[in-house]
Amino acid sequence: MTRVAQAYRRIAECGRDEVFITLRPQAEVEAECRAATGPLAGTLLAVKDNVDVAGLPTTAACPGYAYTPDADAPAVAALRAAGAVVIGKTNLDQFATGLVGTRSPYGAVRDSLRPEHISGGSSSGSAVAVALGFADVAIGTDTAGSGRVPAGLQGLVGIKPTLGATANAGVVPACASYDCLTIFAADLETAQTAMAVMAAGAPDRSWPTDTPLAAPPAPRVAIPGALDDLDPDWQAAFGAAVARARAAGFEIVEIEMADFFAAADLLYHGALVAERADAVGEFVAAAGAADGLDPTVAGIIGAARGHTAVGLLADRRAVAELRAAAMARLAGAAALMVPTAPCHPTLAQVAADPVGVNTKMGRYTNFCNLFDLCALAVPAGTAADGAQFGVTLLAPAHHDAVLADLGARFLGEPAGPAWPERAGVARSVDLAVFGLHLRGQPLEHQLTGRGARWAGPLRTAACYRLYELDTEPAKPGMVRDDSGASIAGERWALSPAALGEFLAALPAPMTLGAIELDDGSTVTGFGCDHAAATAGRDITAAGGWLAARSAPVC
Amino acid sequence: MTRVAQAYRRIAECGRDEVFITLRPQAEVEAECRAATGPLAGTLLAVKDNVDVAGLPTTAACPGYAYTPDADAPAVAALRAAGAVVIGKTNLDQFATGLVGTRSPYGAVRDSLRPEHISGGSSSGSAVAVALGFADVAIGTDTAGSGRVPAGLQGLVGIKPTLGATANAGVVPACASYDCLTIFAADLETAQTAMAVMAAGAPDRSWPTDTPLAAPPAPRVAIPGALDDLDPDWQAAFGAAVARARAAGFEIVEIEMADFFAAADLLYHGALVAERADAVGEFVAAAGAADGLDPTVAGIIGAARGHTAVGLLADRRAVAELRAAAMARLAGAAALMVPTAPCHPTLAQVAADPVGVNTKMGRYTNFCNLFDLCALAVPAGTAADGAQFGVTLLAPAHHDAVLADLGARFLGEPAGPAWPERAGVARSVDLAVFGLHLRGQPLEHQLTGRGARWAGPLRTAACYRLYELDTEPAKPGMVRDDSGASIAGERWALSPAALGEFLAALPAPMTLGAIELDDGSTVTGFGCDHAAATAGRDITAAGGWLAARSAPVC
Repeated sequence: MTRVAQAYRRIAECGRDEVFITLRPQAEVEAECRAATGPLAGTLLAVKDNVDVAGLPTTAACPGYAYTPDADAPAVAALRAAGAVVIGKTNLDQFATGLVGTRSPYGAVRDSLRPEHISGGSSSGSAVAVALGFADVAIGTDTAGSGRVPAGLQGLVGIKPTLGATANAGVVPACASYDCLTIFAADLETAQTAMAVMAAGAPDRSWPTDTPLAAPPAPRVAIPGALDDLDPDWQAAFGAAVARARAAGFEIVEIEMADFFAAADLLYHGALVAERADAVGEFVAAAGAADGLDPTVAGIIGAARGHTAVGLLADRRAVAELRAAAMARLAGAAALMVPTAPCHPTLAQVAADPVGVNTKMGRYTNFCNLFDLCALAVPAGTAADGAQFGVTLLAPAHHDAVLADLGARFLGEPAGPAWPERAGVARSVDLAVFGLHLRGQPLEHQLTGRGARWAGPLRTAACYRLYELDTEPAKPGMVRDDSGASIAGERWALSPAALGEFLAALPAPMTLGAIELDDGSTVTGFGCDHAAATAGRDITAAGGWLAARSAPVC
Repeated sequence: MTRVAQAYRRIAECGRDEVFITLRPQAEVEAECRAATGPLAGTLLAVKDNVDVAGLPTTAACPGYAYTPDADAPAVAALRAAGAVVIGKTNLDQFATGLVGTRSPYGAVRDSLRPEHISGGSSSGSAVAVALGFADVAIGTDTAGSGRVPAGLQGLVGIKPTLGATANAGVVPACASYDCLTIFAADLETAQTAMAVMAAGAPDRSWPTDTPLAAPPAPRVAIPGALDDLDPDWQAAFGAAVARARAAGFEIVEIEMADFFAAADLLYHGALVAERADAVGEFVAAAGAADGLDPTVAGIIGAARGHTAVGLLADRRAVAELRAAAMARLAGAAALMVPTAPCHPTLAQVAADPVGVNTKMGRYTNFCNLFDLCALAVPAGTAADGAQFGVTLLAPAHHDAVLADLGARFLGEPAGPAWPERAGVARSVDLAVFGLHLRGQPLEHQLTGRGARWAGPLRTAACYRLYELDTEPAKPGMVRDDSGASIAGERWALSPAALGEFLAALPAPMTLGAIELDDGSTVTGFGCDHAAATAGRDITAAGGWLAARSAPVC
């Protein structure tokens, strides 16, 4: 059975008609998959229905708002150009206003495993489509946590990139200053592949030339100092995740979360919500019964029109002040780790208190985009109450690669280049090292402290000689010599600024320049002043520094 | 006569009581000057009266608003710590709302040379204090042009740095998102010295690691394609400035300004003005006759309270769209050069049409801070009508060093490190070059194209040998050799990212590493693989590449 046939069979079997607002005919999808080429060839892609796909209606879960775009959103176009095939448009909390997945006239989206519980939202259909195998990858959007909460509840990876990492063109705005596109997938590697393609398309924001490419070897990770708002089962689940993080080598520190929570409260309980009225307020104000407005969403957006400009400015100033205080709490930490959601409500609980439950769901997500953080939601097992449990790693803007690295270590997946580096938006340059900068050696910290990423072993072409210099501590110096041998080293990837700073601090007699490798390629790497090197002891025969140290050449 | 005595005598002679709102007693200033140490020791500093100086009232030109701060604003504290001595607090358009200098109950500030004309504002007293020799340096603020318009009309240099270059703590906000502190001085060198001290104090915004440190050798500079709004005398003055720019080596290109002007209109004629109500709206609303409100200012701020949050969001979106279009017009240009002000009105003309004239004054300044540009106003002679004329150079955020370099070339002043580099906020690293990267040589563009700054000649210690390599084109390779000589080269300053990118592109057999100089210091610089170098012709005796090329060693 083809992947497409399998997906449509799952869709038919599962009885979750609420997941898709538009499902494409199977034959069309089959045909596109057969013709698809590229790194994502045949990957089935579900698209949240507030993102444009050419020729399919964009409803934002509001029938009266629907329009049919002529063109794909640039992010969708990038994924399709890489071979992904759109299977359909997924349900959502109307106008992406909610974290529950129930606020839609197309039906409340139910949890993939426990249908009496919510899916989480607003990217409800996208998350459940991946969780139930209807799609391999899904596009979500995230303003208050819509790309994370459903990832957590559905046992998925959710990448909430730095704001502006992808163009927001062709996306119905929710709260335009804080909106971004996200990716859901079952594993981090698949999610990163898709995110890299989407981000390479058309970023709205440039990346700094000192973007870190990895987390340090023993990262410090902050966690909330108290989790009083979680049920005991969920506290235990988070405790297990913390233990797993420690086992992965993270140093855990507890911090006070009050400033984060205060900002979270501002997202809906202040003038910032005026952005939702700016986005669709005129439509909502003019809409009638036939337009299918969700009453809770209509109430939130309707009330948002009354805010004054002065009120908005005051709330933004408050956010900036809270951000400064919160970032001070995170000083020295590579990331903050929190429960993705604080609980897993039933549909009935949401219906009984639609606003109160929704507010609670955003406790660990709402502050993120207001503070210009990036985030990565990863699955972390199952709570004792049967709910899938997840944690989210958060870090300042453009630290997405740090999160991807931490996430891979947490999940036990191999860590390669993270999506910003794969997308080419975070520039990286390579450096070959042969001595004290090798992994685990005394000067490795000069690389890892600058956000460098270990990129594997390498060997030079057979035309170098290695000498043990007469220095304290001992270190090697390598010079080109056609009578030499192939020398073992390592490749590290650095940001251009990190390489420049590293070079500026490099003492004599070490040099950096083009090194020829055994595969015929060249890479920037360590050399040594010829006179200083040849005054030392020739250890070429050992084939590398570590070999020479473990079995000294006589 | 001491500088202080001279200043107080000028103040007494000139009859410009409106310049200072608070003038400190001469004896106090004398005493502080005698005790002052540091790079600005004894520099007389005038401070706009919306910036806190400990123990002196901050009025913002509104008597009823006045308070007396316990502490200096951080920017003032930094200048005082460097030896500058505050002589007094200067008059301004009330609440920094205006570009004319007449909107103050402390009196309209008159032009330094033609007292029937306005000084320009809102930093009116600061500019006139420097122009008339009452102070050496003055602090202004700039939201819509308040640090530029009076610089232009008073024949001064005005540095309007990148937003966030200095902390805005201790400054009465005008339009907080767009406010920044500025420096006035009679010459660029003095202005840069003061700006560097102020920016080193406490920046509110970090600088990218690829900040350019200089303008390229033949910079392209954009100018407005039409200046229909200028009187013929002023059009001629701008034409003379353009000719001077061409003579300085600038390539001039004309661009369409409609997007810039459209944004300028939004600053006052839309919801953005709500920030002024956010700043002082409650005070203005509650103020009575005794508070000394300027009626024009009170009208503007009072009306600003009525805007809605949705209106503010729409106008900010409009600014973002105009910015994108405007920046596309500037693509390929190092800077935009415009007249600083379009005319020099009389006090009577302003009184007859206070809002209309003010609007006109902001035509070439209002868009700047909205577009997150930095600016440098420089004097450019006298118009035929007798007005002092100035031009302003503008570039994207963090391109302040590019502007300083262009300004120095325009003025014929020597160009050294610009203030962001002096302040240490724009990180720079040095590179020593000895061959094709020397100034005027074929590969110089690899440095200048990355924003590098030529930083003078250097010589190595007498322990290097120089070889002419067998390459096409010919180039030198230098190796350390205790039997060698001192080799002539040049020092360039680069951003860390530029150095990293440069190294990553460096082909064999060239290397970079620490080079010992004749003064005993070391600098990162060019070396060469030993075997490749010594296979070439030894040209050490010539003492450098250029000497060897002009008088080949036999």
